[in-house]
Parts: sequence; C-alpha cells; structure tokens
Amino acid sequence: MVITFLSDYGLEDDFVGVCHAVMAGVAPDARVVDLTHGVPRHDVRTGALVLRRALPFCPPGVHLAVVDPEVGGKRRAVALRCAADDRILVGPDNGLLLPAAEAFGGVVAAVELGESPHRLRPVSATFHGRDLFAPVAAALAGGAPFDDAGAPVEVDDLTPLELPSARLEGEVLVAHALAIDTFGNVTLDALHDQLSAAGLRLGAKVVVSIDGEEHDAHYATTFADVAPGELLLYEDAYRTLALAVNRGSAAERMAVALDDELHLTPAAP
Amino acid sequence: MVITFLSDYGLEDDFVGVCHAVMAGVAPDARVVDLTHGVPRHDVRTGALVLRRALPFCPPGVHLAVVDPEVGGKRRAVALRCAADDRILVGPDNGLLLPAAEAFGGVVAAVELGESPHRLRPVSATFHGRDLFAPVAAALAGGAPFDDAGAPVEVDDLTPLELPSARLEGEVLVAHALAIDTFGNVTLDALHDQLSAAGLRLGAKVVVSIDGEEHDAHYATTFADVAPGELLLYEDAYRTLALAVNRGSAAERMAVALDDELHLTPAAP
Amino acid sequence: MVITFLSDYGLEDDFVGVCHAVMAGVAPDARVVDLTHGVPRHDVRTGALVLRRALPFCPPGVHLAVVDPEVGGKRRAVALRCAADDRILVGPDNGLLLPAAEAFGGVVAAVELGESPHRLRPVSATFHGRDLFAPVAAALAGGAPFDDAGAPVEVDDLTPLELPSARLEGEVLVAHALAIDTFGNVTLDALHDQLSAAGLRLGAKVVVSIDGEEHDAHYATTFADVAPGELLLYEDAYRTLALAVNRGSAAERMAVALDDELHLTPAAP
Repeated sequence: MVITFLSDYGLEDDFVGVCHAVMAGVAPDARVVDLTHGVPRHDVRTGALVLRRALPFCPPGVHLAVVDPEVGGKRRAVALRCAADDRILVGPDNGLLLPAAEAFGGVVAAVELGESPHRLRPVSATFHGRDLFAPVAAALAGGAPFDDAGAPVEVDDLTPLELPSARLEGEVLVAHALAIDTFGNVTLDALHDQLSAAGLRLGAKVVVSIDGEEHDAHYATTFADVAPGELLLYEDAYRTLALAVNRGSAAERMAVALDDELHLTPAAP
Repeated sequence: MVITFLSDYGLEDDFVGVCHAVMAGVAPDARVVDLTHGVPRHDVRTGALVLRRALPFCPPGVHLAVVDPEVGGKRRAVALRCAADDRILVGPDNGLLLPAAEAFGGVVAAVELGESPHRLRPVSATFHGRDLFAPVAAALAGGAPFDDAGAPVEVDDLTPLELPSARLEGEVLVAHALAIDTFGNVTLDALHDQLSAAGLRLGAKVVVSIDGEEHDAHYATTFADVAPGELLLYEDAYRTLALAVNRGSAAERMAVALDDELHLTPAAP
Repeated sequence: MVITFLSDYGLEDDFVGVCHAVMAGVAPDARVVDLTHGVPRHDVRTGALVLRRALPFCPPGVHLAVVDPEVGGKRRAVALRCAADDRILVGPDNGLLLPAAEAFGGVVAAVELGESPHRLRPVSATFHGRDLFAPVAAALAGGAPFDDAGAPVEVDDLTPLELPSARLEGEVLVAHALAIDTFGNVTLDALHDQLSAAGLRLGAKVVVSIDGEEHDAHYATTFADVAPGELLLYEDAYRTLALAVNRGSAAERMAVALDDELHLTPAAP
C-alpha cells in the first residue's frame, strides 16, 4: 500500500523524518512517497492546490497532508474516504483536503481523529504530524478499518476551501490569480471552456487587463512560441491555465498579487 | 529492518544519494528512513541532540549518523550496541552517538570500523559516509553479526559529548542555551523536576535573567497562551523546555548565544 | 530492482514527488534511490559528471536522469543499455547519459521513447519526467523488455557530451576547469598518469598558471596537509583531481571560470 505525504515542514529539520520513522514502525510494508514538503509555511491554499493536481498521478492509497497553522487549536483532525478508488485522505480539517477529494468523486465518509486509537500518546500540542496524522495514516495503510480510526463526522460539516472562481461577464473572462510560483508564473482559475466562450483561441493574441492596465499576451502552447520577454497565456503540465513571461516574471510585469482579478479579452484583429 | 540516517551532508549534492545507493546494494531489503540531512555543517552537538530526541520515535534497527568534522583524522569510526531493543548506532566516535545511546540504556558493546570487512575499498580520506558508515550500517541491518563488524573497543573509552548541565543554586535555576533554531527559539537544559524545585509553576510568571538583564516570561503551554511579542517558557513537542517569543525571536530579544547561562526565578506575586 | 533518480528539479516543488508517485504505480516493488535533485537548473554537463561518478557506487538497475533544457523541442528521449551489468539509462539524448554509459562499457542498444507504450497519455509539452521518463524507467525496472520500450536508434547517432580534455604540451600539463562547486573547489580533467608524465609528484610543490598568473600549490593528500589559506592539488573522494584552498575558495583565488585552461608544472626545486 502506498502512502503519499505532503507538508509545509521543509527538509531542514527532522519533522518529516520523524513522521517517516513513525510510519515505518506502524506499517513496515507500506511505501511512503514524499510529494513535496516545500509548500510555503502555513499556506493551506497552495497545499490544497498542489495536492489536487498531484493526486491523479498517484496510485490509490492513503494520502497524508499536513499544512496546519491552527495545530493545537480547535480545528479538527480528520480522515476522509473518497468515492473513487477508496482513496483515503488524512490531515487537518481546514480545507487542505477537500479539493483533492472532489477530484475523486467527493467524500463518502469522514472520521475525527483527536481520540483515534492509532495516535501516539501523549499527543503534543504542536506536532500532530508525528503524533496523530502519521500513525493514523500508517495504520490505515496497514489495513486498519476506516470506521475504527476515529469518531464519525458529518461530511457536510467539513471545512471547505475558499477559492475565487472565474466567470464570464458578457464576453469578458474575469479570472483570478490562484497561485504564483517562484518564477513569477501566475496560475489562473479560468477553465478551458470559459476561454472558448470568451472567444480566446490558441495561437491568437489576448489582452489581459488588471486595474485598468492592459498587457498584450499570446495564447501559446509553450514558452518557446514567444520571444524572450513576451507575455504568454498557456496550459501548464497539469492542464491548468497560467500566465508567464518567457525568461521573466509575469507577476512582476503585471504587478499581480494573489486573488487579483484579471480581465481577458481577444485582441482587436 | 529499518536503517535511519541523519547527517550534515545537505541535499544539494549527491552525498546522501550515494550513501543510499551503497546501502541499497548491500541490503536490498532494508528500509532507509532519512531523519534529516539539514544538521548545520560540522555541528556535532546539534546532530547529537536531534538524534537523541528523534530515536524514541523510530522503530528499533540500525541508526546511521554522520556529522564528522574530523573525517580522515584520528577520530575512530564505530558501531555501538545499546542495552535496550538491541539498537545499533553507527557513526564517528566524536560524541554524536552517545546521548542517543544513553536514552536506550547505554552502550553494551562497541567496535571500531576502520578495518571493517564491510567497508568499501579503497576507503577515501574524506567520504567515510559512503565508504565506511553506510556499508557497515547496511551489512548490520542485513543481519551481519555485530562483533564481526570491527575490532572491539572499550565502552569506557568512547568520546563523550560535552554538554552544559542545569543546576539549582539555592532557589535559582541556572540553565543554559543548548540549541537555538532558525526561529530564534532557545532550547534549555533544564529538567522538569528542576523547574518544580525552583518554584516555577505552569501558568505563572517567570523572570529570566541573562548577564544581569531581566526579562518577564510566562510559563505557558502553547504560543497561543501569550500575546504576540511576549516571551514564553514552554515544553516543546519533544518535552524539552524552551524559551520563545510568540511571532518573534527569543534569541534576539534576550541576546542569547549558545551555552549562555540563564537564571530562572518565579516573578514576585 | 533498483531505480536511481537524478535531476535538476529541486525539492521545493512537487516535480520529484510526482515522478516517484508515477513509478510507485507502475512498479510497486522497485526501490527508488534519489541520487540528487540539486543539479544546477539546465546544467547538463554537471548532471552528466555527477551521474558518471555516482553510478559505480550504485547497484545495477535502471538509472533515470533528467536535466532537460530542451524538453518539448527536438531532442530525443531515450533508453540506453550498457555493455556491463545490463545497466539501463533513461533520459534525454542531450549528452547527459553518455559519460556514465562509457563507464559501463558503452552503449550496446538504444531506443527512442517518444511513442513508448509505457508513456502516460497525453504527454505534456514540459514535464517529460512525469509523462515519459518515469513511467518508462519503472516499466523497465518491473521487467518490461528493453526492445519494446521504444523505437530502435543507431548508437552512433546519440548526442555526445562535449568536454574539454587535458593534454601534455612538452612537459606542461594543460588541464581545464571541468566543474566548480559551491565551496570554490575546482575539478580538473587531468588524469593521474598525465600528472606523472608531467613530473608532478604527491608531496611536492606545483606551479599552476592561468592567464599568465602563477600560483603555488601543494600536491597533497588532504586539506589538513596544507595551512589554512594555501592552495592544494588533491584527489577528491571520487579519485578525480581538483584544486582547492584550505578553508577558502580556489575558484576565487585564481579567478577561474568553467572551461578555463590551467598549466601545471613542477615548482623549481
């Protein structure tokens, strides 16, 4: 059984390693795949988006994710079972897990882990990855029944992730900056059919306006399709739409911040 | 069998990877868990403290640790067997391993590895992780007898780690800064019963004085128990006592350096 | 079966983790060893040199390597079978793999992977590690026949890596800076017998001249053989010749850049 593991712990300290050690003790035969531990500290939304895009490439199993700014507070610790593939997600109930669950048919059962029989005792106030999430994930990967891992929770009570949502206003596509990576590439929330509906065509020019400032872009397949320094709208390796500057930073060029609204329209012919 | 692996090699280069490759060749069925490779370069004491606090969360097995500023010099390479769980520690005899061994009942047998039959040949002058420690750790994990791994060493001859030690002077608890992390949190060497003996109570105020400067702190359970910017004395996730500033740096606030003496007393009521 | 994995992806993002996840799905029993993912971005030559020096320490198996600045362009994706040990190399045909293959007797068979039956579909334009290289490497590690993994390629058509080559001019050894690491240590392309032929003897002094500037060095065994601040010529842990300054930077001291020519001669007695 495979356990995937994503967190914002980084690799400088022993947090990730100690979670691995706990899992190796509980489930000696489970294989643990580190998706990434480089999620920006406490950035639940980025963690949720990375998890959602990565899981379709992972074999079914237990998916452990910890980005948990409210650890030790009132947020619940949960395990969720998805409709498709019996995939199980384990982590804090702060929105981190739900977008990924939706990609697998949504949640069909949920348990709260605070008093889980699989937890280490005592559970510390600050390191639930080690004391709660890792041992529960490993126990589930080792075959422990889902329903016994904690107390039942109403699926409708789970905490959703608040995300902006692209929309059409007449013929203008109003999208948002969903994520900005270290290269200044800007992930949008626009969907492929919204682009078509707004008259935007692959290979054609696009006007992107933000705060009244207009920027010319190419709707292109790859960076190599535009000259260095030019702005392009493209589909990234996860089929998500994004803005980039070839050998530059789109975020800087357009002064875009997270959640900013961008208006996309076809350029005049 | 599990091998845990801790070092100061970092992950930029191929040092850690090549050690893994050597272990995979020697012990194809052993599972290697990286505890961390982010120990500050050549910082034996931090390595020893991280190892000591992490191993109780690791299943029994072989524990490989390499923080080795004197590689190629006269320091010995050793394997140590602990009283509890038959745990085996492998690494340089420079104090790195002994605090962890003490947590498992102390060392009951030791061998020197310079001429170990499991070493790679030739042994390089600078990369004993690859040529000596990794192949010996893997051979032991694969079932090779401990006594055959090297030449016997007197347990009393092993190099101890020099650590400061908190003490009571009358009713003043004199503690030391044992480690300082990247957030400026300061780990102390004070023990829980020393706090009680000094009249320090959870929930009460504490005066921390360093070089004659006095600082007010709260002896609290979590960061959230004090206002942002306030100093707290707390028990970290490893049950070790530490000083921190909520959303700030205790090391900076108090101008504390490693090994500095701190005097702790109850605040006047 | 072991799969080793080297790339320039870094560990900040989920690129490496998603490749691992894909391999775990295709070959659940293969063991994946990360050699390093810290190769400088798009630096094919450094990747090739690290791979060549690391593979002799790896058990036979499938060796996946991805440093791929022309991904999505015309460069081919290939799998190569080596003469020795039946080792298989998987990666882009841009010179990254050939030096390592030469260390194992050269390439005896090659296939082009663009239409490999093992690829994920659709293959993205920018993430061939996930869509092409990882699933092919895992399929091969799982026992899929080499010849079925892609279309045959003439071995002589593979893209070589261009590397400078040290030579003797009379009694002067003309070497080049092949790589420069973060400590400023400079790897040379000089071979051991070229040093002998040039009259350079371990323990003796050497004059290194670059651009007419002369620098005195010791041909020594370890850093500790010279005083802090002194230049030394030494054999590194991979038996490669290199220049270093004890506790300093040889690259800075001598103002050396990659591929620069250095002239080595014995110092006058």
